[in-house]
Amino acid sequence: MDIQSIINRIASDVSTASDRGQVADYIPELASIDPNQFGISVALPDGTCFSAGDAQTPFSIQSVSKVFTLALALGRFGDQLWTRVGREPSGLPFNSILQLEQENGIPRNPFINAGAIAITDSILTGHEPKEVLGELLRFVQTSAEDADIHINDTVAHSETEHGDRNLALAHFMASYGNLQNHPDRTCGTYFHQCAIEMSCQQLAMAGRFLTGHPDAPRLISLQRTRRINALMLTCGHYDGSGDFAYRVGLPGKSGVGGGILVIAPNRASIAVWSPGLNEYGNSQLGTYAIEKFAQMTGWSVFG
Amino acid sequence: MDIQSIINRIASDVSTASDRGQVADYIPELASIDPNQFGISVALPDGTCFSAGDAQTPFSIQSVSKVFTLALALGRFGDQLWTRVGREPSGLPFNSILQLEQENGIPRNPFINAGAIAITDSILTGHEPKEVLGELLRFVQTSAEDADIHINDTVAHSETEHGDRNLALAHFMASYGNLQNHPDRTCGTYFHQCAIEMSCQQLAMAGRFLTGHPDAPRLISLQRTRRINALMLTCGHYDGSGDFAYRVGLPGKSGVGGGILVIAPNRASIAVWSPGLNEYGNSQLGTYAIEKFAQMTGWSVFG
Amino acid sequence: MDIQSIINRIASDVSTASDRGQVADYIPELASIDPNQFGISVALPDGTCFSAGDAQTPFSIQSVSKVFTLALALGRFGDQLWTRVGREPSGLPFNSILQLEQENGIPRNPFINAGAIAITDSILTGHEPKEVLGELLRFVQTSAEDADIHINDTVAHSETEHGDRNLALAHFMASYGNLQNHPDRTCGTYFHQCAIEMSCQQLAMAGRFLTGHPDAPRLISLQRTRRINALMLTCGHYDGSGDFAYRVGLPGKSGVGGGILVIAPNRASIAVWSPGLNEYGNSQLGTYAIEKFAQMTGWSVFG
Amino acid sequence: MDIQSIINRIASDVSTASDRGQVADYIPELASIDPNQFGISVALPDGTCFSAGDAQTPFSIQSVSKVFTLALALGRFGDQLWTRVGREPSGLPFNSILQLEQENGIPRNPFINAGAIAITDSILTGHEPKEVLGELLRFVQTSAEDADIHINDTVAHSETEHGDRNLALAHFMASYGNLQNHPDRTCGTYFHQCAIEMSCQQLAMAGRFLTGHPDAPRLISLQRTRRINALMLTCGHYDGSGDFAYRVGLPGKSGVGGGILVIAPNRASIAVWSPGLNEYGNSQLGTYAIEKFAQMTGWSVFG
Repeated sequence: MDIQSIINRIASDVSTASDRGQVADYIPELASIDPNQFGISVALPDGTCFSAGDAQTPFSIQSVSKVFTLALALGRFGDQLWTRVGREPSGLPFNSILQLEQENGIPRNPFINAGAIAITDSILTGHEPKEVLGELLRFVQTSAEDADIHINDTVAHSETEHGDRNLALAHFMASYGNLQNHPDRTCGTYFHQCAIEMSCQQLAMAGRFLTGHPDAPRLISLQRTRRINALMLTCGHYDGSGDFAYRVGLPGKSGVGGGILVIAPNRASIAVWSPGLNEYGNSQLGTYAIEKFAQMTGWSVFG
Repeated sequence: MDIQSIINRIASDVSTASDRGQVADYIPELASIDPNQFGISVALPDGTCFSAGDAQTPFSIQSVSKVFTLALALGRFGDQLWTRVGREPSGLPFNSILQLEQENGIPRNPFINAGAIAITDSILTGHEPKEVLGELLRFVQTSAEDADIHINDTVAHSETEHGDRNLALAHFMASYGNLQNHPDRTCGTYFHQCAIEMSCQQLAMAGRFLTGHPDAPRLISLQRTRRINALMLTCGHYDGSGDFAYRVGLPGKSGVGGGILVIAPNRASIAVWSPGLNEYGNSQLGTYAIEKFAQMTGWSVFG
Repeated sequence: MDIQSIINRIASDVSTASDRGQVADYIPELASIDPNQFGISVALPDGTCFSAGDAQTPFSIQSVSKVFTLALALGRFGDQLWTRVGREPSGLPFNSILQLEQENGIPRNPFINAGAIAITDSILTGHEPKEVLGELLRFVQTSAEDADIHINDTVAHSETEHGDRNLALAHFMASYGNLQNHPDRTCGTYFHQCAIEMSCQQLAMAGRFLTGHPDAPRLISLQRTRRINALMLTCGHYDGSGDFAYRVGLPGKSGVGGGILVIAPNRASIAVWSPGLNEYGNSQLGTYAIEKFAQMTGWSVFG
Repeated sequence: MDIQSIINRIASDVSTASDRGQVADYIPELASIDPNQFGISVALPDGTCFSAGDAQTPFSIQSVSKVFTLALALGRFGDQLWTRVGREPSGLPFNSILQLEQENGIPRNPFINAGAIAITDSILTGHEPKEVLGELLRFVQTSAEDADIHINDTVAHSETEHGDRNLALAHFMASYGNLQNHPDRTCGTYFHQCAIEMSCQQLAMAGRFLTGHPDAPRLISLQRTRRINALMLTCGHYDGSGDFAYRVGLPGKSGVGGGILVIAPNRASIAVWSPGLNEYGNSQLGTYAIEKFAQMTGWSVFG
């Protein structure tokens, strides 16, 4: 079956699902989203893109943005970055502070909130938040070949209003000397990065630089591509990462907005979106769809 | 450079290393091993095997055995196995009991000690330890095409003598109803499985069934092959799994005897051995060698 | 109101209670006990004893026995004992193993299970279980001036049958070198000590040595009396110790059989018993009764 | 020996101590304090006061202030206060955030930092920080019969500058809905309360209301006096509370400035001060001195 037929079938399959998970409710902008939406896009390295469902509807990418800031930070600091953040799965929820205390303010990996805040803090040092967010948007727009990707200011503002947990993480890291900017400033930038909006099609296009294929935009080195994929596989779905690797077999990064970016190295960049979340905070139908997709294509990094 | 030249260069490179890590010292049989040994073997799916260094010297495979018992248990119970063991990285040392208490006696994954004990317990139910160990040896021998693989009884006995930590894990699971046999019986079998001896060449040959390549012995389904590889990648190196995935980019399982089995899906099964361990309990030079090997061959599951 | 009137009123008050807590159900001998029983006895230092309710009915003292083994062990080893056990509240349930791992096999205090097992292990070294249990019984009988106090062998046997959690604690400590006897031997002795049976009257009499009053049996020094009282106050009710100190204001030690021994220094030794337990594993009505008693007498160590 | 002779002997004894612990160094105002200072005062309920050493030198009372805010909060809210804060020892360091996550933002007790911040937050609601601090100072001044007790603004400002850890705790509680004011506002008030300065003599005088003696200032009910004493005994020395109860046998509350307030119910209020801290963050020589004092007077709540 060709890719278009596969994703059509999945979209049709998903449309009848009864258990769609729970929409994130910590800010009104996410809580009010219609859970009955589902989109999927598959972008080949050369930019050919297949879509089904609500693939043109923009959504809040939230933690999927952590992949892009990590790419920026690795580009700027290389392996020195790992003095501030670890590379291990955490075995804990995405917003846990437990591990920070046990490991002296060094977050376990760049994809849990504390780690992502440290990454944002690193690229913020010596720059204005506006500059950093501009650079980030340009990176995403370049990779997606689409200048029409922006930040939703209402969402960003709402994140700030409800940002106590992340501010706690930031102040906590600051108390260990692992924050270079004021927590308000770093978190403010972080909340804006999370409020980037993209459709499945835009996100799939933007993810192509991680396929490592010569036809895709080459924004970072091949070695770095592999390494980000490795981190996505081991840590990209919080405490559901092992399960995702087991069931799907492809690197992915999920966001609380219901989006997931999945990379099939050398083959394609895939984006799925459905707002309802499972117990780990990952899109319930998105996870299901991508598992189905991996089965039907036979794509897996594991053989 | 061809495979033989690559591993020759690595073996030569490693021979001058000054920091070789610490040999495991919890039983005299491991503590007395000469740390200046190093072997590497690369077995292609069809059985062609390249070796360098002390690749014919048998060593105690210890936790590498968990890969084989997992394959057996999945073959017998399928996904039902996951009611007793999870599939997530633990974020904790290999012999930690913390997580067991927080998660009601369900070990996080089959590669930490508690999880491996639960796996062994599952295949032991309704059988004699001798039968189970016989079946395990036949599985390994078949995959390795080598009938000369055995259990070192002295090591098994010594493990039993110093087995309090594992007995604690077993009794703890029993108190949650997650053990079907007496802790002494399950741990006794587990200690024997850990005492299997193989050389790098034998281990590389034995691992071929996980490459998923049609020329390799087909002992389990392709889907199961991928899933075991996924578990090896996310959980195979304890709390150093993320780092191994980041640096090496291939699924692997290490043992406290200094051996590591690494799978390059569709390409080869690789075994390295050097007795000195790093801070996570994984072979220090073995990890270095396999990282070097991945770099020189360009092999990676991530693109 | 005099003591007899006070406890009569309390017994009458308690008899109409609707929520009596949950009877311990991990062994059939405890699970089958009628929860509608309640007894209370107040023994003055000189042996004058006031009783109400089912104060002559023998019950399993369980963890209350830890007070007597601690007195024996302190008598034999003095402050050296504290190299093996700590003196801090644990902030965790009575049978938790978490803390043991975080603190290298040293239990937090002698009243959580792990700590009590270490105490029993210490007095067992160089002796037969029978001798140690004999010495313990003689200590209790002497203090109670009652030779008719014994161990219930059925209960002891049943504890052994369901002893996995405690065996896990013992093996765990053994793996850190903090056990001098085989876990089976130490736990076997521990299970028998927990199976001592006493009535409220016997227990109140037996506790008098902790009042520090010159008329009471002087089995240990006054300084040691105070110190055991301090440990009872800070650690005697597991993770409900702070609440007990706040509400009752007297040192006490509870057992899962529903008994509580409470000391009013220089005044009296009090025993209450009611089999139903609260969320912390302490007698629900026993706690209520003793709080009432403290209010009505005005007895408190805090002024 | 009379009280004056006892404390003279202790002051003389302490003056030759070689290991004086480590002065708190998280703010310059504490780090620069001469560790060779020691003071002790014993105030009888009627205001008779005995002093030795540097008993007139003002020091930063820091966490000792938590006793006074707790008294105020209990006075205002009674037992309703305990919906926001627990009453159990924590088994963790004073500034730990671990437990907050495990127990949904409810601090374990009012004497760890998180709990004290919640207490301050409770009395701040509906008031200006200035009012609350004024009320607190008046409470302390009344109890001490000394209008010359004030807040050191330089210390308060410095605490704010280095307040990330406490701000993390406050934001964390806020994320669980357990903070009624903005973290900056609550912590700002908290930092000022910690910066109250008193001499040993002033502190001993101020503590008399907790002796429960009719001659002492009666600022709270007798029952409440006992309960605060119970909390001081079980939780007043962080993770060294059990040890303090064991060795000293009297309720006490320590501060990182090196001060300790100790209550001998019905007898006296005692203040010691020496800036060097032990591993738990309690005054090293202060603890030693008060243990000595308890031994020499024979005062103990435990008999």
